[in-house]
Amino acid sequence: MPATQAYLDYGAATPLDPQVLEAMMPYLTGEFYNPSAPYALARQTRDALEQARTTLASLIGARPASITLTAGATEANNLAFAAVDGHVVTSAIEHESVLACAKSHDHTLVGVGPDGRVDLPALRRAITPETQLVSVELANGEVGAIQPVREIAQAVAAERMRRLEAGERNPIYLHTDASQAALTHAINVSSLGADLLTLSAAKVYGPKQVGLLWASDDVRLRPLVRGGGQEGGVRSGTENVAGVIGFARAFELACAGRKEEARRLQELRSRLQSRLEAAFPSMVVSGPKRSKLRLPGLLHVSFAGLDAMRLVIGLERLGVSVGTGSACAASRMQVSHVLTAMGVPQEVARGSLRMTLGRPTTTDEIDYAAEAIERVVRGEAARVGVSL
Amino acid sequence: MPATQAYLDYGAATPLDPQVLEAMMPYLTGEFYNPSAPYALARQTRDALEQARTTLASLIGARPASITLTAGATEANNLAFAAVDGHVVTSAIEHESVLACAKSHDHTLVGVGPDGRVDLPALRRAITPETQLVSVELANGEVGAIQPVREIAQAVAAERMRRLEAGERNPIYLHTDASQAALTHAINVSSLGADLLTLSAAKVYGPKQVGLLWASDDVRLRPLVRGGGQEGGVRSGTENVAGVIGFARAFELACAGRKEEARRLQELRSRLQSRLEAAFPSMVVSGPKRSKLRLPGLLHVSFAGLDAMRLVIGLERLGVSVGTGSACAASRMQVSHVLTAMGVPQEVARGSLRMTLGRPTTTDEIDYAAEAIERVVRGEAARVGVSL
Repeated sequence: MPATQAYLDYGAATPLDPQVLEAMMPYLTGEFYNPSAPYALARQTRDALEQARTTLASLIGARPASITLTAGATEANNLAFAAVDGHVVTSAIEHESVLACAKSHDHTLVGVGPDGRVDLPALRRAITPETQLVSVELANGEVGAIQPVREIAQAVAAERMRRLEAGERNPIYLHTDASQAALTHAINVSSLGADLLTLSAAKVYGPKQVGLLWASDDVRLRPLVRGGGQEGGVRSGTENVAGVIGFARAFELACAGRKEEARRLQELRSRLQSRLEAAFPSMVVSGPKRSKLRLPGLLHVSFAGLDAMRLVIGLERLGVSVGTGSACAASRMQVSHVLTAMGVPQEVARGSLRMTLGRPTTTDEIDYAAEAIERVVRGEAARVGVSL
Repeated sequence: MPATQAYLDYGAATPLDPQVLEAMMPYLTGEFYNPSAPYALARQTRDALEQARTTLASLIGARPASITLTAGATEANNLAFAAVDGHVVTSAIEHESVLACAKSHDHTLVGVGPDGRVDLPALRRAITPETQLVSVELANGEVGAIQPVREIAQAVAAERMRRLEAGERNPIYLHTDASQAALTHAINVSSLGADLLTLSAAKVYGPKQVGLLWASDDVRLRPLVRGGGQEGGVRSGTENVAGVIGFARAFELACAGRKEEARRLQELRSRLQSRLEAAFPSMVVSGPKRSKLRLPGLLHVSFAGLDAMRLVIGLERLGVSVGTGSACAASRMQVSHVLTAMGVPQEVARGSLRMTLGRPTTTDEIDYAAEAIERVVRGEAARVGVSL
């Protein structure tokens, strides 16, 4: 196998930023103390942990006490759903963790348009007097659709107001998983109007299995993991000190470079998209057409009649790593629930590649990848007798 | 504050072994891929992860598929309890995660003797036809009592046999948290006779928030965290690749040096204990008298009439870090539930220090610590007018 020429799957995993690893190193070596221990060395470790929490909170306009540190976004999403017993509303294209949690409640899945954006009128209709949680990802990780979370927040607020006026006491909360959006979109809990928000370190050049759930004062979280009472009793277990400190540094760096990086990724994505569109006029590009409504570093394309797994294998022979569908589902080779919900025909969906660009991506890498994709797609099309 | 002269709280936190960090580093830098991604680079990451699982499994005499990787021992204990709905039996001196889980079930807490060992006849009586889980820590982390897990396994097996003969279908499992014992005691799931077993990386010079739950084929685990289906659907979320690889390396090193290290720790502990006993004839040493029944690196002592927190502060001024009670409870300054269950009077319990020795501990460090403890304890005794 050749050396990697182009890794284009940052949506599945980001490397640790070297500055993040540097921030973590003291806590992977000398500063290893248990933050709950009573002596000064351990209190310093606790202070560093709490400083990281404060950094994370301030970057999303929240108070440190409203942040629960978790072992990743999946756990944070589970924790959000564990806060309610009643009816939940979510979209049909959510991350598998949200869909799995929804299915353990009375639930309504709202459809999306052909561009992957949530059907807002349908979402409004899905909210009943029994609904306790609405959960919509800020940006879909597979086709990159930015969801109208503020409009959804208004719908939730309207229902809340109706209940208040009717004297109904059933609470209703809005949760959004902002993991995929956090690198390129400003995340502010007030302006989003959400009550619960998930973030992942692993998507912002931080460590794996580190995440957080922000919750407004109105929400009473219920623990999934009980014990020593860490995280305000909501998530027990000795804290992942190095991981959390890495998360804070990673998110700090992401926020500092956000605008410039979003612009840069969008240019690179346009370059890749233009080249592939020129080569393959029948190629389908999924996700919203307006670039403002699509993650700037994501390109989802489909080649009707081809098999994505064969394309991935052909591409890796040329040193190009790309994804098929969402990372979690990828290893199971089923047609993506996201594309199905968007109404993409199966034979188109089966030939889908997801390219997600990242901080290390260069123009040269894009050009190399474009050429490799052209070559592999042409080869496969010729083999199976499809004209593109 | 002076530099640390003696850190004697390895029961609360162990530093990463440099060889562990070395094993983790590739996965904190270049090998950052998502193990679920479809290309070769990611499959290599997956292979490394699965190799680590195989290592961990083989070190406890288990099959890799029976290991669920978790974000720490607390989560693993929670997962064990989530496997059952019925009555549970545990001891009054378990780790807080086990006690918290027990309290969410119909439960019976079995007492312990003055040495901290579980009252076996009481445990046998506590098992009813409704009991589905018995959970007893292999070694208590606070006073170091090694529990009679094999005898408990026999009691569970006898009840299982009785049910089989009576045609009763209610299952009964034995869970043991072996986290505190893993550095100095061989852990073999067959010879222990357990059905569920917890281990923690953070207690064996591995990373924090990494652990595992082993489960026999008879147990059907139920997920606390749902989503992408990792860990056989039992623990979703992109895997903590570096953490798991570090865990495997740490446990491998621990097992390789186990006997020699246990002997060495016991000698150091005896040296410390003898010096303190000579200085303070009224000092109470808790835990089993027979060294075979006590964790070799642990010394729990109490000074009636003194305040442990003042001793800890005095000691840290001399660069000596020790624990008061269990690490989790320590920051809350309540009298340890372990000592209470052992029948230690409150005024004795309040003056308790826990010293846990570790791999880096030297004779010089022990001598320095002994001198510091003598000085601080004498000072406090003089201040409050207690004669020791």
